[in-house]
Amino acid sequence: MPARVRPLPQTARRFSVPVRIYYQDTDAGGVVYHARYLDYLERARMEWLRAIGFEARALAQRESVMFIVRSIVIDYLKPALLDDLLESTLAVSMAGAALLKLNQSIVRSDDALVNAEVDLACIDAKTFRPTRLPQALRDECSRWVYVENNSLIA
Amino acid sequence: MPARVRPLPQTARRFSVPVRIYYQDTDAGGVVYHARYLDYLERARMEWLRAIGFEARALAQRESVMFIVRSIVIDYLKPALLDDLLESTLAVSMAGAALLKLNQSIVRSDDALVNAEVDLACIDAKTFRPTRLPQALRDECSRWVYVENNSLIA
Amino acid sequence: MPARVRPLPQTARRFSVPVRIYYQDTDAGGVVYHARYLDYLERARMEWLRAIGFEARALAQRESVMFIVRSIVIDYLKPALLDDLLESTLAVSMAGAALLKLNQSIVRSDDALVNAEVDLACIDAKTFRPTRLPQALRDECSRWVYVENNSLIA
Amino acid sequence: MPARVRPLPQTARRFSVPVRIYYQDTDAGGVVYHARYLDYLERARMEWLRAIGFEARALAQRESVMFIVRSIVIDYLKPALLDDLLESTLAVSMAGAALLKLNQSIVRSDDALVNAEVDLACIDAKTFRPTRLPQALRDECSRWVYVENNSLIA
Repeated sequence: MPARVRPLPQTARRFSVPVRIYYQDTDAGGVVYHARYLDYLERARMEWLRAIGFEARALAQRESVMFIVRSIVIDYLKPALLDDLLESTLAVSMAGAALLKLNQSIVRSDDALVNAEVDLACIDAKTFRPTRLPQALRDECSRWVYVENNSLIA
Repeated sequence: MPARVRPLPQTARRFSVPVRIYYQDTDAGGVVYHARYLDYLERARMEWLRAIGFEARALAQRESVMFIVRSIVIDYLKPALLDDLLESTLAVSMAGAALLKLNQSIVRSDDALVNAEVDLACIDAKTFRPTRLPQALRDECSRWVYVENNSLIA
Repeated sequence: MPARVRPLPQTARRFSVPVRIYYQDTDAGGVVYHARYLDYLERARMEWLRAIGFEARALAQRESVMFIVRSIVIDYLKPALLDDLLESTLAVSMAGAALLKLNQSIVRSDDALVNAEVDLACIDAKTFRPTRLPQALRDECSRWVYVENNSLIA
Repeated sequence: MPARVRPLPQTARRFSVPVRIYYQDTDAGGVVYHARYLDYLERARMEWLRAIGFEARALAQRESVMFIVRSIVIDYLKPALLDDLLESTLAVSMAGAALLKLNQSIVRSDDALVNAEVDLACIDAKTFRPTRLPQALRDECSRWVYVENNSLIA
């Protein structure tokens, strides 16, 4: 069964947060419950937005915008275990007018456990309709977009 | 170690909802993760409010009130397992002007797994300040209050 | 932004479970938190397996197999709200020797909120290595596989 | 409504971990969902055990013991909000032969949001029966037990 998500190119600019695994994250199979990885992906996104100056609550209150998840493609490659210390990593593959496309991974000592593509839409925090990213945020996101190696060929 | 919560008196008027246990509810100990029982207690409260005519969204929008949890005392007596079918049960021990006191249990075939006392405060949905229960709701709650046997003596 | 997942063909054999939305399911955006839908998808899978005679705990103990999620593609089309009553629906698009491919949806009154493709792998409950589905289970799954309309054209 | 749990004495020996609030932690009331605080309490307990040399997985595998929650008393004093950075704090009020009694708090800039008393039982990881704490662990725990001021009077 081929993986659906290509791993992040080594050269992509990345942002990471550490994730420790507690009982609350595991299930009776003895490993991390599959939906919990989406929480770790969200933590990386929110910490990245905070790091570039766009904390979620301030975004909603000052700029009246929010990000919502439009779609996720996620491959589960290896399980994480109780007490593991992981990295939740993010790179930006596209920063559109009202859309962000991210590549995300959950990694344990350079070993990818989960790879995901996450599409986010920017919406108005009141009407919930799609809206443009604030220009300063879009500019900042653009600085993070990586260019894939093969697109450099020719 | 003595239990902190007395079981519900057999004669109390009760409301119950079924709860099925899935992987999402369990942890690597092989049993239900302890915080998940609070979710089952919440489901019984919300279904009871719906059954007596006070669904949460309508309460917030029409009456501008919400319930918040003020305190919980909870005893974990026996563990629940994957695939178990439980009952989450509720009885009202006090219906005050701005406060509800509930006794709740999680039961598997008449075997109490968890007993809890839950105190709820009624708050204004906008200011988040304590406020009185709408009269129709308080009247309805009063019909559910059970009187403990020993308080009937003398 | 085009959807990644095609909706279920109307003619597919389906299995559904009801899902009620509580505070525990929502987030500060006022709608259901995106990772929670994976829990609803899991409930449909586990109830379907139970309905066809293969409850998870019995599968693990008697047949020594478990299903794990290999990959998910999920589109978020519309948000679910507090108190909503949804249907979590499943159809089988492929039943392989060691792999099940499912189409799943979360629906509110015929309105698809979420569409997903979920690939499950059958693993040995002790070694965690891929293994074949028990024959009786594979036979039962095969009865659920739907054939898409366009594959009938010729 | 009086609080059920007394705050930690200022002089108690404490252990703390930081907790950041994400969308995954909040509910449609706009604040942290009440059951999530139990997760933050668990993180402090597991990080404390790790810090004193008794990581959960090693405890289960090498010493064949686990801790389970026997009872919790929890007061919700003030709500936590999206993006808040909290401290989850723990002190040991009693270290018995097979039982630990903890006082725990969730704090935002010296402001207690939640106070809790948590009783843990030590159980055999295979039989799930109560068992004694490994001696080295009990010795370590004893070094953390705080003596309340009023018990020093007279």
